[in-house]
Amino acid sequence: MKIVRFGAGQWGVLEGETIHETDGPAGNPTGRHFDLGGVTLLAPATPSKIVCVGRNYLDHIREMGHDFGGDLPKEPGLFLKGPNTLAHPANPARPDRSGDVVPYPSFTNLLHYEGELAVVIESRMKNVPEDEALEHVLGYTCALDVTARDKQKTDLQWVRAKSADKFCPLGPWLVTSLDPQNTTLRTYVNGELRQEAHTSLMIFPVAKILSYISSFMTLEPGDVVLTGTPEGVGELKRGDQVEVAIEGIGDLHTRIEN
Amino acid sequence: MKIVRFGAGQWGVLEGETIHETDGPAGNPTGRHFDLGGVTLLAPATPSKIVCVGRNYLDHIREMGHDFGGDLPKEPGLFLKGPNTLAHPANPARPDRSGDVVPYPSFTNLLHYEGELAVVIESRMKNVPEDEALEHVLGYTCALDVTARDKQKTDLQWVRAKSADKFCPLGPWLVTSLDPQNTTLRTYVNGELRQEAHTSLMIFPVAKILSYISSFMTLEPGDVVLTGTPEGVGELKRGDQVEVAIEGIGDLHTRIEN
Repeated sequence: MKIVRFGAGQWGVLEGETIHETDGPAGNPTGRHFDLGGVTLLAPATPSKIVCVGRNYLDHIREMGHDFGGDLPKEPGLFLKGPNTLAHPANPARPDRSGDVVPYPSFTNLLHYEGELAVVIESRMKNVPEDEALEHVLGYTCALDVTARDKQKTDLQWVRAKSADKFCPLGPWLVTSLDPQNTTLRTYVNGELRQEAHTSLMIFPVAKILSYISSFMTLEPGDVVLTGTPEGVGELKRGDQVEVAIEGIGDLHTRIEN
Repeated sequence: MKIVRFGAGQWGVLEGETIHETDGPAGNPTGRHFDLGGVTLLAPATPSKIVCVGRNYLDHIREMGHDFGGDLPKEPGLFLKGPNTLAHPANPARPDRSGDVVPYPSFTNLLHYEGELAVVIESRMKNVPEDEALEHVLGYTCALDVTARDKQKTDLQWVRAKSADKFCPLGPWLVTSLDPQNTTLRTYVNGELRQEAHTSLMIFPVAKILSYISSFMTLEPGDVVLTGTPEGVGELKRGDQVEVAIEGIGDLHTRIEN
Protein backbone atom coordinates (compact mmCIF):
# COMPACT_ATOMS: atom_id res chain seq x y z
CA MET A 1 0.00 0.00 0.00
CA LYS A 2 1.17 3.53 -0.80
CA ILE A 3 0.31 6.25 1.74
CA VAL A 4 0.50 9.88 0.63
CA ARG A 5 0.30 13.18 2.47
CA PHE A 6 -0.94 16.02 0.33
CA GLY A 7 -2.73 19.33 -0.03
CA ALA A 8 -3.38 21.03 3.28
CA GLY A 9 -2.02 18.09 5.28
CA GLN A 10 -4.53 15.43 4.27
CA TRP A 11 -3.61 11.75 4.14
CA GLY A 12 -4.64 9.18 1.57
CA VAL A 13 -3.96 5.85 -0.08
CA LEU A 14 -2.63 5.98 -3.63
CA GLU A 15 -3.95 3.43 -6.13
CA GLY A 16 -2.74 3.99 -9.65
CA GLU A 17 -3.11 7.73 -10.13
CA THR A 18 -6.01 8.08 -7.65
CA ILE A 19 -5.71 9.19 -4.04
CA HIS A 20 -8.38 7.79 -1.72
CA GLU A 21 -8.43 10.28 1.13
CA THR A 22 -8.25 8.92 4.70
CA ASP A 23 -8.74 10.54 8.08
CA GLY A 24 -5.15 9.90 9.15
CA PRO A 25 -1.86 8.28 8.12
CA ALA A 26 -3.32 4.77 8.32
CA GLY A 27 -6.89 5.93 8.74
CA ASN A 28 -10.36 5.25 7.45
CA PRO A 29 -11.59 6.36 4.01
CA THR A 30 -13.40 9.69 3.97
CA GLY A 31 -15.00 8.84 0.62
CA ARG A 32 -13.23 11.72 -1.15
CA HIS A 33 -10.93 11.06 -4.11
CA PHE A 34 -8.24 13.13 -5.82
CA ASP A 35 -6.13 12.79 -8.94
CA LEU A 36 -2.46 12.48 -8.01
CA GLY A 37 -1.56 14.95 -10.73
CA GLY A 38 -3.90 17.57 -9.28
CA VAL A 39 -2.49 17.78 -5.77
CA THR A 40 0.64 19.03 -4.03
CA LEU A 41 2.48 16.18 -2.36
CA LEU A 42 3.85 16.77 1.15
CA ALA A 43 6.63 15.03 3.02
CA PRO A 44 4.81 11.89 4.26
CA ALA A 45 5.48 12.41 7.97
CA THR A 46 4.98 14.98 10.72
CA PRO A 47 7.79 13.98 13.09
CA SER A 48 8.54 15.17 16.59
CA LYS A 49 12.11 14.19 15.76
CA ILE A 50 14.27 12.83 12.95
CA VAL A 51 16.86 10.35 14.18
CA CYS A 52 19.63 9.38 11.77
CA VAL A 53 22.28 6.68 11.63
CA GLY A 54 25.64 8.17 10.71
CA ARG A 55 27.63 5.16 9.58
CA ASN A 56 25.71 2.14 8.42
CA TYR A 57 27.39 1.00 5.20
CA LEU A 58 30.99 -0.17 5.42
CA ASP A 59 32.06 1.26 2.06
CA HIS A 60 30.77 4.73 3.06
CA ILE A 61 32.64 4.52 6.37
CA ARG A 62 35.82 3.78 4.38
CA GLU A 63 35.26 6.58 1.88
CA MET A 64 34.93 9.04 4.77
CA GLY A 65 38.36 7.91 6.01
CA HIS A 66 37.29 5.98 9.14
CA ASP A 67 38.33 2.39 9.73
CA PHE A 68 37.55 1.65 13.40
CA GLY A 69 40.89 -0.19 13.54
CA GLY A 70 39.26 -2.85 11.42
CA ASP A 71 36.39 -3.44 13.86
CA LEU A 72 32.81 -2.65 12.97
CA PRO A 73 30.93 -0.29 15.28
CA LYS A 74 29.06 -2.23 17.97
CA GLU A 75 26.15 0.21 18.17
CA PRO A 76 24.58 2.55 15.61
CA GLY A 77 26.15 6.04 15.63
CA LEU A 78 23.28 8.52 15.74
CA PHE A 79 22.63 12.18 15.06
CA LEU A 80 19.48 14.31 14.93
CA LYS A 81 17.97 16.50 12.23
CA GLY A 82 15.42 19.15 13.28
CA PRO A 83 11.85 18.96 11.88
CA ASN A 84 12.67 22.27 10.11
CA THR A 85 14.71 20.16 7.67
CA LEU A 86 11.69 18.45 6.11
CA ALA A 87 11.21 19.35 2.45
CA HIS A 88 8.31 18.29 0.28
CA PRO A 89 8.85 15.90 -2.62
CA ALA A 90 8.20 16.57 -6.27
CA ASN A 91 4.98 14.98 -7.54
CA PRO A 92 5.92 12.22 -10.03
CA ALA A 93 2.61 12.78 -11.86
CA ARG A 94 3.35 16.45 -12.54
CA PRO A 95 5.57 17.16 -15.52
CA ASP A 96 7.13 20.23 -13.89
CA ARG A 97 8.48 18.04 -11.07
CA SER A 98 7.18 20.47 -8.45
CA GLY A 99 8.32 20.16 -4.85
CA ASP A 100 10.53 22.11 -2.50
CA VAL A 101 13.85 23.53 -3.61
CA VAL A 102 16.70 22.93 -1.17
CA PRO A 103 18.44 26.23 -0.37
CA TYR A 104 22.21 26.43 -0.74
CA PRO A 105 23.03 28.24 2.53
CA SER A 106 25.65 30.99 2.55
CA PHE A 107 27.52 29.40 5.47
CA THR A 108 28.75 26.44 3.40
CA ASN A 109 30.88 25.89 0.33
CA LEU A 110 30.52 22.13 0.26
CA LEU A 111 27.03 20.73 0.11
CA HIS A 112 26.79 16.91 -0.22
CA TYR A 113 23.99 14.51 -1.10
CA GLU A 114 23.38 11.35 0.92
CA GLY A 115 20.58 9.12 -0.37
CA GLU A 116 18.89 7.07 2.35
CA LEU A 117 16.05 4.70 3.14
CA ALA A 118 13.75 6.41 5.67
CA VAL A 119 11.38 4.76 8.14
CA VAL A 120 8.25 6.41 9.54
CA ILE A 121 6.93 5.23 12.91
CA GLU A 122 3.27 4.27 13.38
CA SER A 123 3.04 3.61 17.12
CA ARG A 124 5.01 4.63 20.18
CA MET A 125 8.24 2.67 20.75
CA LYS A 126 9.93 2.45 24.13
CA ASN A 127 12.24 -0.47 24.92
CA VAL A 128 10.98 -2.52 21.99
CA PRO A 129 12.96 -5.70 21.27
CA GLU A 130 14.44 -6.14 17.81
CA ASP A 131 12.03 -8.91 16.81
CA GLU A 132 9.00 -6.69 17.45
CA ALA A 133 10.42 -3.43 16.09
CA LEU A 134 9.07 -3.58 12.53
CA GLU A 135 5.49 -3.96 13.85
CA HIS A 136 5.74 -0.28 14.84
CA VAL A 137 6.60 0.92 11.32
CA LEU A 138 3.99 2.80 9.31
CA GLY A 139 6.03 2.69 6.11
CA TYR A 140 9.22 3.31 4.20
CA THR A 141 10.21 6.15 1.92
CA CYS A 142 13.20 7.88 0.30
CA ALA A 143 15.20 10.61 2.00
CA LEU A 144 17.95 12.96 0.90
CA ASP A 145 20.17 13.74 3.87
CA VAL A 146 21.60 17.05 2.66
CA THR A 147 24.89 17.70 4.44
CA ALA A 148 27.18 20.73 4.68
CA ARG A 149 30.29 18.57 4.69
CA ASP A 150 32.66 21.44 5.59
CA LYS A 151 30.72 22.26 8.76
CA GLN A 152 30.83 18.68 10.04
CA LYS A 153 34.51 19.19 10.73
CA THR A 154 34.51 22.74 12.09
CA ASP A 155 31.36 22.94 14.23
CA LEU A 156 30.85 21.64 17.79
CA GLN A 157 28.12 19.22 16.61
CA TRP A 158 26.41 18.59 13.27
CA VAL A 159 23.69 21.23 13.58
CA ARG A 160 24.49 23.55 10.68
CA ALA A 161 25.92 20.54 8.81
CA LYS A 162 22.67 18.55 9.00
CA SER A 163 19.79 20.74 10.21
CA ALA A 164 19.56 23.82 8.02
CA ASP A 165 16.04 24.47 6.70
CA LYS A 166 14.91 21.93 4.08
CA PHE A 167 17.98 19.72 4.49
CA CYS A 168 15.75 16.60 4.52
CA PRO A 169 13.62 16.10 1.41
CA LEU A 170 11.34 13.11 2.09
CA GLY A 171 8.96 11.12 -0.11
CA PRO A 172 7.27 10.85 -2.49
CA TRP A 173 5.05 8.49 -0.39
CA LEU A 174 5.21 5.72 2.17
CA VAL A 175 5.22 2.08 1.14
CA THR A 176 3.91 -0.21 3.87
CA SER A 177 4.91 -3.68 2.71
CA LEU A 178 8.62 -3.35 1.88
CA ASP A 179 11.30 -5.67 3.25
CA PRO A 180 13.74 -2.94 4.33
CA GLN A 181 16.77 -5.24 4.02
CA ASN A 182 15.93 -6.46 0.54
CA THR A 183 15.81 -3.52 -1.81
CA THR A 184 18.24 -1.36 -3.77
CA LEU A 185 18.89 2.32 -3.23
CA ARG A 186 20.26 4.56 -5.98
CA THR A 187 21.11 8.26 -6.02
CA TYR A 188 21.37 10.21 -9.26
CA VAL A 189 22.68 13.74 -9.73
CA ASN A 190 21.54 15.37 -12.97
CA GLY A 191 20.64 11.90 -14.21
CA GLU A 192 24.05 10.35 -13.44
CA LEU A 193 24.17 7.35 -11.10
CA ARG A 194 26.27 8.22 -8.02
CA GLN A 195 25.18 5.79 -5.28
CA GLU A 196 23.94 2.24 -5.62
CA ALA A 197 23.65 -0.27 -2.80
CA HIS A 198 21.53 -3.17 -1.69
CA THR A 199 20.07 -2.57 1.76
CA SER A 200 21.24 -6.01 2.93
CA LEU A 201 24.64 -4.27 3.19
CA MET A 202 23.51 -2.17 6.17
CA ILE A 203 25.70 -2.90 9.20
CA PHE A 204 22.67 -2.45 11.46
CA PRO A 205 19.34 -3.57 9.98
CA VAL A 206 16.27 -1.37 10.47
CA ALA A 207 14.85 -3.56 13.27
CA LYS A 208 18.09 -3.27 15.24
CA ILE A 209 18.28 0.52 14.71
CA LEU A 210 14.71 1.09 15.93
CA SER A 211 15.14 -1.21 18.91
CA TYR A 212 18.39 0.52 19.87
CA ILE A 213 16.92 4.04 19.64
CA SER A 214 13.85 2.98 21.61
CA SER A 215 16.06 1.72 24.44
CA PHE A 216 16.75 5.32 25.53
CA MET A 217 14.68 7.65 23.33
CA THR A 218 10.93 7.06 22.98
CA LEU A 219 9.90 7.09 19.33
CA GLU A 220 6.51 8.70 18.69
CA PRO A 221 4.02 8.14 15.85
CA GLY A 222 5.22 10.13 12.86
CA ASP A 223 8.88 10.14 13.89
CA VAL A 224 11.35 9.58 11.08
CA VAL A 225 14.47 7.41 11.19
CA LEU A 226 17.13 7.70 8.48
CA THR A 227 19.10 4.50 8.08
CA GLY A 228 22.42 5.75 6.71
CA THR A 229 23.93 6.35 3.29
CA PRO A 230 26.04 4.00 1.19
CA GLU A 231 29.27 4.93 -0.57
CA GLY A 232 29.35 7.40 -3.41
CA VAL A 233 28.48 10.61 -1.56
CA GLY A 234 29.63 13.75 -3.32
CA GLU A 235 29.21 17.41 -4.00
CA LEU A 236 26.08 19.27 -4.99
CA LYS A 237 26.29 22.41 -7.12
CA ARG A 238 23.69 25.14 -7.38
CA GLY A 239 20.91 24.10 -9.72
CA ASP A 240 21.59 20.36 -9.43
CA GLN A 241 18.74 17.88 -9.73
CA VAL A 242 18.97 14.97 -7.31
CA GLU A 243 16.97 11.76 -7.36
CA VAL A 244 16.90 9.15 -4.62
CA ALA A 245 15.30 6.01 -6.07
CA ILE A 246 14.49 2.95 -3.98
CA GLU A 247 13.09 -0.15 -5.63
CA GLY A 248 9.59 -0.90 -4.41
CA ILE A 249 9.08 2.71 -3.27
CA GLY A 250 9.71 5.19 -6.08
CA ASP A 251 11.72 8.33 -6.82
CA LEU A 252 12.32 11.34 -4.60
CA HIS A 253 13.19 14.20 -6.91
CA THR A 254 14.80 17.34 -5.46
CA ARG A 255 16.28 20.52 -6.88
CA ILE A 256 19.09 22.53 -5.33
CA GLU A 257 18.68 26.30 -5.31
CA ASN A 258 20.13 28.06 -8.31
CA MET B 1 4.16 38.08 34.10
CA LYS B 2 4.44 34.37 34.90
CA ILE B 3 3.02 31.94 32.34
CA VAL B 4 2.32 28.37 33.44
CA ARG B 5 1.39 25.20 31.59
CA PHE B 6 -0.53 22.73 33.69
CA GLY B 7 -3.08 19.94 34.00
CA ALA B 8 -4.03 18.43 30.66
CA GLY B 9 -1.95 20.96 28.71
CA GLN B 10 -3.81 24.13 29.66
CA TRP B 11 -2.04 27.48 29.83
CA GLY B 12 -2.48 30.26 32.38
CA VAL B 13 -1.08 33.34 34.06
CA LEU B 14 0.09 32.91 37.64
CA GLU B 15 -0.64 35.70 40.11
CA GLY B 16 0.33 34.87 43.66
CA GLU B 17 -0.95 31.32 44.12
CA THR B 18 -3.78 31.66 41.57
CA ILE B 19 -3.65 30.50 37.96
CA HIS B 20 -5.86 32.50 35.58
CA GLU B 21 -6.44 30.07 32.72
CA THR B 22 -5.86 31.36 29.17
CA ASP B 23 -6.64 29.88 25.76
CA GLY B 24 -2.96 29.66 24.78
CA PRO B 25 0.59 30.44 25.90
CA ALA B 26 0.00 34.22 25.68
CA GLY B 27 -3.72 33.93 25.16
CA ASN B 28 -6.98 35.42 26.37
CA PRO B 29 -8.51 34.62 29.78
CA THR B 30 -11.07 31.81 29.77
CA GLY B 31 -12.51 33.02 33.08
CA ARG B 32 -11.50 29.83 34.89
CA HIS B 33 -9.18 29.92 37.89
CA PHE B 34 -7.10 27.30 39.67
CA ASP B 35 -5.04 27.12 42.84
CA LEU B 36 -1.38 26.56 41.99
CA GLY B 37 -1.16 23.94 44.73
CA GLY B 38 -4.01 21.95 43.23
CA VAL B 39 -2.62 21.40 39.74
CA THR B 40 0.17 19.45 38.09
CA LEU B 41 2.69 21.77 36.45
CA LEU B 42 3.95 20.86 32.99
CA ALA B 43 7.13 21.89 31.18
CA PRO B 44 6.12 25.37 29.92
CA ALA B 45 6.74 24.71 26.22
CA THR B 46 5.70 22.32 23.45
CA PRO B 47 8.72 22.63 21.16
CA SER B 48 9.27 21.28 17.67
CA LYS B 49 12.95 21.39 18.59
CA ILE B 50 15.29 22.20 21.46
CA VAL B 51 18.43 23.99 20.29
CA CYS B 52 21.30 24.29 22.76
CA VAL B 53 24.51 26.29 22.98
CA GLY B 54 27.39 24.04 23.98
CA ARG B 55 30.00 26.51 25.15
CA ASN B 56 28.82 29.89 26.28
CA TYR B 57 30.65 30.61 29.55
CA LEU B 58 34.43 30.89 29.41
CA ASP B 59 35.06 29.26 32.79
CA HIS B 60 33.01 26.21 31.76
CA ILE B 61 34.95 25.94 28.50
CA ARG B 62 38.16 25.92 30.54
CA GLU B 63 36.91 23.33 33.04
CA MET B 64 36.07 21.01 30.12
CA GLY B 65 39.69 21.29 28.97
CA HIS B 66 39.20 23.40 25.84
CA ASP B 67 41.06 26.64 25.29
CA PHE B 68 40.58 27.53 21.61
CA GLY B 69 44.24 28.52 21.55
CA GLY B 70 43.24 31.53 23.65
CA ASP B 71 40.65 32.76 21.11
CA LEU B 72 36.97 32.85 21.93
CA PRO B 73 34.64 31.00 19.57
CA LYS B 74 33.35 33.32 16.83
CA GLU B 75 29.95 31.64 16.54
CA PRO B 76 27.82 29.74 19.07
CA GLY B 77 28.51 25.99 19.08
CA LEU B 78 25.14 24.24 18.89
CA PHE B 79 23.61 20.86 19.55
CA LEU B 80 20.05 19.54 19.59
CA LYS B 81 18.01 17.77 22.24
CA GLY B 82 14.92 15.81 21.14
CA PRO B 83 11.48 16.82 22.46
CA ASN B 84 11.44 13.43 24.23
CA THR B 85 13.86 15.00 26.72
CA LEU B 86 11.31 17.38 28.22
CA ALA B 87 10.53 16.62 31.86
CA HIS B 88 7.90 18.34 33.95
CA PRO B 89 8.93 20.53 36.88
CA ALA B 90 8.04 20.06 40.51
CA ASN B 91 5.27 22.35 41.71
CA PRO B 92 6.77 24.82 44.23
CA ALA B 93 3.39 25.05 45.97
CA ARG B 94 3.24 21.31 46.67
CA PRO B 95 5.17 20.11 49.69
CA ASP B 96 5.97 16.73 48.09
CA ARG B 97 7.88 18.52 45.33
CA SER B 98 6.08 16.48 42.65
CA GLY B 99 7.37 16.53 39.09
CA ASP B 100 9.10 14.10 36.78
CA VAL B 101 11.95 11.94 37.96
CA VAL B 102 14.94 11.85 35.58
CA PRO B 103 15.86 8.23 34.82
CA TYR B 104 19.46 7.14 35.29
CA PRO B 105 19.91 5.18 32.03
CA SER B 106 21.79 1.89 32.06
CA PHE B 107 24.06 3.00 29.19
CA THR B 108 25.91 5.59 31.29
CA ASN B 109 28.02 5.62 34.42
CA LEU B 110 28.59 9.36 34.49
CA LEU B 111 25.50 11.56 34.57
CA HIS B 112 26.18 15.31 34.90
CA TYR B 113 24.00 18.31 35.74
CA GLU B 114 24.21 21.51 33.70
CA GLY B 115 21.99 24.34 34.93
CA GLU B 116 20.91 26.74 32.19
CA LEU B 117 18.73 29.71 31.31
CA ALA B 118 16.14 28.59 28.74
CA VAL B 119 14.30 30.75 26.21
CA VAL B 120 10.88 29.88 24.73
CA ILE B 121 9.97 31.34 21.34
CA GLU B 122 6.65 33.12 20.79
CA SER B 123 6.67 33.82 17.04
CA ARG B 124 8.42 32.36 14.02
CA MET B 125 12.03 33.49 13.54
CA LYS B 126 13.81 33.28 10.21
CA ASN B 127 16.77 35.57 9.47
CA VAL B 128 15.95 37.86 12.38
CA PRO B 129 18.61 40.50 13.16
CA GLU B 130 20.06 40.58 16.65
CA ASP B 131 18.37 43.85 17.60
CA GLU B 132 14.90 42.40 16.90
CA ALA B 133 15.48 38.90 18.26
CA LEU B 134 14.12 39.38 21.80
CA GLU B 135 10.78 40.58 20.40
CA HIS B 136 10.16 36.96 19.40
CA VAL B 137 10.63 35.60 22.93
CA LEU B 138 7.60 34.40 24.88
CA GLY B 139 9.52 34.01 28.11
CA TYR B 140 12.45 32.67 30.09
CA THR B 141 12.68 29.69 32.41
CA CYS B 142 15.13 27.30 34.09
CA ALA B 143 16.46 24.16 32.42
CA LEU B 144 18.55 21.24 33.60
CA ASP B 145 20.60 19.96 30.67
CA VAL B 146 21.17 16.40 31.89
CA THR B 147 24.25 14.98 30.20
CA ALA B 148 25.76 11.50 29.99
CA ARG B 149 29.29 12.85 30.06
CA ASP B 150 30.95 9.52 29.22
CA LYS B 151 28.93 9.17 25.99
CA GLN B 152 29.91 12.61 24.73
CA LYS B 153 33.38 11.23 24.13
CA THR B 154 32.58 7.79 22.76
CA ASP B 155 29.51 8.34 20.53
CA LEU B 156 29.40 9.71 16.98
CA GLN B 157 27.32 12.70 18.10
CA TRP B 158 25.73 13.73 21.40
CA VAL B 159 22.47 11.81 21.04
CA ARG B 160 22.63 9.37 23.94
CA ALA B 161 24.68 11.97 25.84
CA LYS B 162 22.01 14.67 25.59
CA SER B 163 18.72 13.23 24.30
CA ALA B 164 17.72 10.29 26.48
CA ASP B 165 14.12 10.49 27.71
CA LYS B 166 13.54 13.24 30.31
CA PHE B 167 17.07 14.66 29.99
CA CYS B 168 15.64 18.21 29.89
CA PRO B 169 13.62 19.21 32.96
CA LEU B 170 12.12 22.66 32.24
CA GLY B 171 10.24 25.15 34.38
CA PRO B 172 8.59 25.82 36.73
CA TRP B 173 7.05 28.62 34.58
CA LEU B 174 7.93 31.29 32.04
CA VAL B 175 8.77 34.83 33.07
CA THR B 176 8.11 37.34 30.32
CA SER B 177 9.88 40.48 31.51
CA LEU B 178 13.37 39.28 32.42
CA ASP B 179 16.57 40.91 31.13
CA PRO B 180 18.32 37.67 30.09
CA GLN B 181 21.79 39.19 30.50
CA ASN B 182 21.18 40.59 33.96
CA THR B 183 20.32 37.77 36.29
CA THR B 184 22.12 35.11 38.30
CA LEU B 185 21.89 31.36 37.77
CA ARG B 186 22.63 28.88 40.53
CA THR B 187 22.57 25.08 40.58
CA TYR B 188 22.27 23.13 43.82
CA VAL B 189 22.71 19.39 44.31
CA ASN B 190 21.15 18.08 47.52
CA GLY B 191 21.06 21.67 48.77
CA GLU B 192 24.76 22.37 48.07
CA LEU B 193 25.64 25.26 45.74
CA ARG B 194 27.54 23.90 42.71
CA GLN B 195 27.13 26.51 39.96
CA GLU B 196 26.75 30.27 40.28
CA ALA B 197 27.14 32.76 37.46
CA HIS B 198 25.79 36.09 36.31
CA THR B 199 24.33 35.83 32.81
CA SER B 200 26.29 38.89 31.69
CA LEU B 201 29.19 36.39 31.51
CA MET B 202 27.67 34.62 28.50
CA ILE B 203 30.03 34.78 25.52
CA PHE B 204 27.03 35.08 23.18
CA PRO B 205 24.03 36.96 24.60
CA VAL B 206 20.55 35.54 24.02
CA ALA B 207 19.75 37.98 21.19
CA LYS B 208 22.88 36.93 19.31
CA ILE B 209 22.16 33.21 19.83
CA LEU B 210 18.58 33.50 18.52
CA SER B 211 19.61 35.62 15.55
CA TYR B 212 22.38 33.16 14.67
CA ILE B 213 20.11 30.10 14.85
CA SER B 214 17.42 31.85 12.80
CA SER B 215 19.95 32.52 10.03
CA PHE B 216 19.78 28.87 8.94
CA MET B 217 17.17 27.12 11.09
CA THR B 218 13.67 28.57 11.35
CA LEU B 219 12.56 28.80 14.98
CA GLU B 220 8.86 28.05 15.54
CA PRO B 221 6.51 29.18 18.32
CA GLY B 222 7.15 26.97 21.34
CA ASP B 223 10.72 26.10 20.39
CA VAL B 224 13.19 26.06 23.26
CA VAL B 225 16.73 27.43 23.23
CA LEU B 226 19.17 26.53 26.00
CA THR B 227 21.84 29.16 26.47
CA GLY B 228 24.74 27.17 27.90
CA THR B 229 25.98 26.24 31.35
CA PRO B 230 28.55 28.04 33.51
CA GLU B 231 31.41 26.35 35.34
CA GLY B 232 30.83 23.94 38.18
CA VAL B 233 29.28 21.02 36.31
CA GLY B 234 29.62 17.71 38.07
CA GLU B 235 28.32 14.25 38.73
CA LEU B 236 24.82 13.20 39.66
CA LYS B 237 24.23 10.11 41.75
CA ARG B 238 21.04 8.06 41.95
CA GLY B 239 18.53 9.74 44.25
CA ASP B 240 20.10 13.20 43.99
CA GLN B 241 17.91 16.29 44.22
CA VAL B 242 18.88 19.07 41.80
CA GLU B 243 17.69 22.66 41.83
CA VAL B 244 18.31 25.21 39.09
CA ALA B 245 17.45 28.63 40.52
CA ILE B 246 17.44 31.79 38.41
CA GLU B 247 16.78 35.16 40.03
CA GLY B 248 13.58 36.70 38.72
CA ILE B 249 12.27 33.30 37.58
CA GLY B 250 12.22 30.75 40.39
CA ASP B 251 13.42 27.22 41.17
CA LEU B 252 13.33 24.15 38.94
CA HIS B 253 13.44 21.18 41.27
CA THR B 254 14.29 17.73 39.85
CA ARG B 255 14.95 14.30 41.30
CA ILE B 256 17.25 11.68 39.81
CA GLU B 257 15.95 8.12 39.77
CA ASN B 258 16.88 6.08 42.81
